[in-house]
Amino acid sequence: MKVAGIVVEYNPFHNGHLYHLQKTREITNADIVVGVMSGNFIQRGEPAIVNKWARTKMAILNGVDVIFELPFAYACNSAEIFAYGAISILNQLGVDFVVFGSECGDIDKLKEAAKHLAFEEDDFKSSLKSYLKEGYSFPKARELALIKTCKTNIEFSSNNILGIEYIKWIYRLSSKIEPLTIKRIGAFYNDPNLTQDIYSSATAIRRNINNLQAIKNKMPSASYEILIEEFESGRGPVFLEDYFKLFIYNAIVVPDFLKNKIDVKEGLENRFEKYIFNSPSAKNLLENVKTKRYTLTRLQRIFIHAVVRNNFDQKTLLSITPYVRVLGFNQKGKEYLNKIKDKIEYITKLNQQWLKNPQYKELLELEIRSSMLHALQYKDFHKYLQTEFKSSPIYISSRS
Amino acid sequence: MKVAGIVVEYNPFHNGHLYHLQKTREITNADIVVGVMSGNFIQRGEPAIVNKWARTKMAILNGVDVIFELPFAYACNSAEIFAYGAISILNQLGVDFVVFGSECGDIDKLKEAAKHLAFEEDDFKSSLKSYLKEGYSFPKARELALIKTCKTNIEFSSNNILGIEYIKWIYRLSSKIEPLTIKRIGAFYNDPNLTQDIYSSATAIRRNINNLQAIKNKMPSASYEILIEEFESGRGPVFLEDYFKLFIYNAIVVPDFLKNKIDVKEGLENRFEKYIFNSPSAKNLLENVKTKRYTLTRLQRIFIHAVVRNNFDQKTLLSITPYVRVLGFNQKGKEYLNKIKDKIEYITKLNQQWLKNPQYKELLELEIRSSMLHALQYKDFHKYLQTEFKSSPIYISSRS
Repeated sequence: MKVAGIVVEYNPFHNGHLYHLQKTREITNADIVVGVMSGNFIQRGEPAIVNKWARTKMAILNGVDVIFELPFAYACNSAEIFAYGAISILNQLGVDFVVFGSECGDIDKLKEAAKHLAFEEDDFKSSLKSYLKEGYSFPKARELALIKTCKTNIEFSSNNILGIEYIKWIYRLSSKIEPLTIKRIGAFYNDPNLTQDIYSSATAIRRNINNLQAIKNKMPSASYEILIEEFESGRGPVFLEDYFKLFIYNAIVVPDFLKNKIDVKEGLENRFEKYIFNSPSAKNLLENVKTKRYTLTRLQRIFIHAVVRNNFDQKTLLSITPYVRVLGFNQKGKEYLNKIKDKIEYITKLNQQWLKNPQYKELLELEIRSSMLHALQYKDFHKYLQTEFKSSPIYISSRS
Repeated sequence: MKVAGIVVEYNPFHNGHLYHLQKTREITNADIVVGVMSGNFIQRGEPAIVNKWARTKMAILNGVDVIFELPFAYACNSAEIFAYGAISILNQLGVDFVVFGSECGDIDKLKEAAKHLAFEEDDFKSSLKSYLKEGYSFPKARELALIKTCKTNIEFSSNNILGIEYIKWIYRLSSKIEPLTIKRIGAFYNDPNLTQDIYSSATAIRRNINNLQAIKNKMPSASYEILIEEFESGRGPVFLEDYFKLFIYNAIVVPDFLKNKIDVKEGLENRFEKYIFNSPSAKNLLENVKTKRYTLTRLQRIFIHAVVRNNFDQKTLLSITPYVRVLGFNQKGKEYLNKIKDKIEYITKLNQQWLKNPQYKELLELEIRSSMLHALQYKDFHKYLQTEFKSSPIYISSRS
């Protein structure tokens, strides 16, 4: 039985995702495709527009066989931590492949770069050091060191970087997973505007979320219908902006609330302090705080971590192995789960056994907190605050 | 120069308040009337519907000569602490009278009861002890002990209780202030419904705040106009319900957030825990949590203290002397302030001198926090979050 793994956010599931899924089956000839999916907050430091249960339904209805959870601590983090979490879960599952999209579409180039990162050989290390000395930020210095020491030329675009990180962790974890890449087609990832054809980026779709006619043909109907159902029930769309008051609240009641917090360095808290009490919106605040060194995405994650009270530092996250939690599956997924249950312990329902497990306790508490804070933005939030405790994985017998 | 003190909330200033003010001048023949006013949160554990600056304007325009601030820590607290704060400020000012409304209207009866509370003579003390042993709550046991040991019969209605507390603190502080009382007229304090005549309670006015025509004739026009101006500018009306999400947020991100908090005893935190994540509103939650021992008002204060993060315990508040801060004045008030400035140091503007003064630092920090949290509910809150630092006392040269 061949199993392919994919790492997804599905925020929301659109035609580009379907293409990725079909290609994954095609090039791996896999019997089973398992997805590791970000929960209620995504990598770029934003809430998912609809919650993970709805997005799991979208995934299963569109043909992913099982969805596992990428815990909040990993999902809403840098490419390095995000990739570690995802690969670590796929590695525990023992999947045969991981298939991801990249701008370059060339697995050998990505592997070559990943090798330098994974093993940090002397020439790479000394090169990195000297760029850091020159005052470059860590990611930039690392990129420059790679360019210098890698023989291949490769663009450090967002999906190439993520791909390199996946491979790096496969190497570092001495995993048997085989990485494969698909070249991303057209504008469907980066363009923030809706395109003319059936492929638009998730960003473009989210930005046009109120223009339902325009986004309808950008996603499979099962995905679109779930989106509508969520909105009609008041469970979304949820935006970063919805957390602005809570962020300000933290600044009011906790003095120095950003000081010594994750990823807050070099006096960044002072830049926040300067603008926090006179910015009309989160967007405006973050634009003001932004510097060359701090990208908007990184600031958004700092914003979300402050609201969710995430205190996991990145070293800790890389030193532990995340739990494997099932969010949903279809018939084939069910058989797969039955097959692996002797090899690996996975979470289906949050009960005291898991909530008190010292290995996972803090990761799960954070997950619950983040889910409650997602639900807090729904119309009838009191009905959904305890969803995490009440939910079992979603089972959908076949494709719609 | 005769100076009369009054203790007020003016939430909002209505005809009943004007009657009280006129009667105060009449029976004291005072040259100056100074008011000690609750800031942005009131004694019953609710936000004021409009902020203290607007309510100060109402007061001055209607003839109070100076308004001083009753700090949040005292204002949003039990009758005992509230009264201590107010009398303590009036005592520092050295006013000649304090004039308050009461249901009984009989100062001798109130003094008699206050004497027992102030000095806790043996018969009162032993009586109190035995009622506590019988399982009564402290306020109820105290009431029963007073009934038993006081020779006078007196109803323990809300304004009588407050009056007794004022007098108690006058006795305990060995103050020279002479207490005087005015019998409250008609339904204008307790009736939650609007009455036919020009007197309605502040509660009734707040409940009908959206029915502007109905409340218009219940208050002086200067008061009504300020109310309208505040609403039109998006600075209110602010309600307890507006803080529900912030309360829930605290419960989500701070485990045991109510445990060992002020006035939370006898497992009350467990009752909150039982209902907190499935109540559709603050009103519903507090109604569910309410017991015979915990009145709604007390629960509302616990709710507000949790949101504002007030950690002042009641013993501490009774062991310190609150600052004297001017919120506004008229021409006569200005002359009065000039006259007293050699005798007493009062705050006009929050500057580092005051903010770092160890005696007042924490009280002022709490005041600022509570004001920011009031402003957080305004439409363009970013314009008002820093009001406390920017504001000088309001000066209005003459009555409108």
